[in-house]
Amino acid sequence: MIFPHRGLVMRRFKLILEYEGTTYSGWQRQEKLPTVQQELEKAFLDFLGVSTSVSGSGRTDAGVHARGQVAHVDIAKPYTAFQILGAMNNRLKYTGTSILSVEEVEPDFHARFSAKARSYEYHILNRRSQPALEKTRAWWVIPPLSVEAMTEGAKYLIGFHDFTSFRDSQCQAASPLKTLNELRVEKINDRILIHAKAPSFLHHQVRNIVGTLKRVGQGYWAPEKVKEILDLKDRRTAGPTAPAHGLYLTHIDF
Amino acid sequence: MIFPHRGLVMRRFKLILEYEGTTYSGWQRQEKLPTVQQELEKAFLDFLGVSTSVSGSGRTDAGVHARGQVAHVDIAKPYTAFQILGAMNNRLKYTGTSILSVEEVEPDFHARFSAKARSYEYHILNRRSQPALEKTRAWWVIPPLSVEAMTEGAKYLIGFHDFTSFRDSQCQAASPLKTLNELRVEKINDRILIHAKAPSFLHHQVRNIVGTLKRVGQGYWAPEKVKEILDLKDRRTAGPTAPAHGLYLTHIDF
Repeated sequence: MIFPHRGLVMRRFKLILEYEGTTYSGWQRQEKLPTVQQELEKAFLDFLGVSTSVSGSGRTDAGVHARGQVAHVDIAKPYTAFQILGAMNNRLKYTGTSILSVEEVEPDFHARFSAKARSYEYHILNRRSQPALEKTRAWWVIPPLSVEAMTEGAKYLIGFHDFTSFRDSQCQAASPLKTLNELRVEKINDRILIHAKAPSFLHHQVRNIVGTLKRVGQGYWAPEKVKEILDLKDRRTAGPTAPAHGLYLTHIDF
Repeated sequence: MIFPHRGLVMRRFKLILEYEGTTYSGWQRQEKLPTVQQELEKAFLDFLGVSTSVSGSGRTDAGVHARGQVAHVDIAKPYTAFQILGAMNNRLKYTGTSILSVEEVEPDFHARFSAKARSYEYHILNRRSQPALEKTRAWWVIPPLSVEAMTEGAKYLIGFHDFTSFRDSQCQAASPLKTLNELRVEKINDRILIHAKAPSFLHHQVRNIVGTLKRVGQGYWAPEKVKEILDLKDRRTAGPTAPAHGLYLTHIDF
């Protein structure tokens, strides 16, 4: 945007962010609780001297981590992307947030509306002993989980479906119809990773899917039960919401 | 050991341990600081009702993590390994320590003296932006490091050498002569991993080697400088000690 009467040229910048979710009450600005959006806006205010609004690609819940959240900001001062990165990270050094990259983008780029797909990763630590190193970084599950059963259950959810059964009661989306591009279960030693990718997700959709697949993995439900749950379009039929601290927002495609 | 006059049979158990080093002032028992050894001995006292001494395979410094530290204990009460694991982890649940496995061993097994080799892993996060997720889990290094140069420098240290240049002034070992079986540098995305394996290490040996290889990696020193440092047998010629929080004790061979 150009404001010729003030001689100011607003430029838009795309930020890629990493944050430790346990430090925050989620992404979105709140009255009295620390959030990632506020952390960034506070640092921008300190850096630029003007209040600057930060828009994210998606709201992450309290406790959810990010290795590839994206946000955009409009800046009128003539700083380069490199200068913004350095000045901001300097101000964020002792917080739970780090800016991985800053890039100037077209004025019509929008972190939320230009996003084509969101990728999440869910970490389950599947072993008898509690985590010492990943207390707030993975969901600790004791019963041995079958990756084969979980993979079979996951197949029913891939594609275009009515995800009402996997949607939080607080979800504000207009429609429960969503396309899930990827839902892949992987085992690496005692860790089970669930990779999910979609143009967009309903509130708690990934965590509700994980809570359901965990029940399938431990043999409490047969894999076909996932199809039944999907067809019933009733949140009460699916598994419990998996804890936030196992979830990572890893990538946004544009 | 059998004490027929009391009818008590002492049995020895091997424990494999994970701990978050930042929580502790190292492995070894100390007057007023929290250590892993004390954490375990306190839990054993609570569990067994008698004071039980825990012997580790090696002392890790304050801040150093473990995914495979080994210790042994002697227990007179007739608990199974499985019961010990459950009862102890229950008492350690809110601490920085977790017992990964408990196994009954021969009475002549000794965590320290029976150990044939120790393996460590050092994590460097090599990128411009500070870590948000691994503040206390990796050494953050900004200048791009060359894995090729580090690998070339590391070659000079593999084998049997006088490691005086890489030994802490506080080191209590009788001799600076040690055999380094493995010293391998690996790059995975923006992470550089240094794998080191030896029958035993001098105090700060891994961290002093990493501090030196980091200088080689950033081009401050040529790889051949590592040989020169080794030959000079003078701690002042090597690089600074790399920070403790990038180091993980990963495995003990018996």
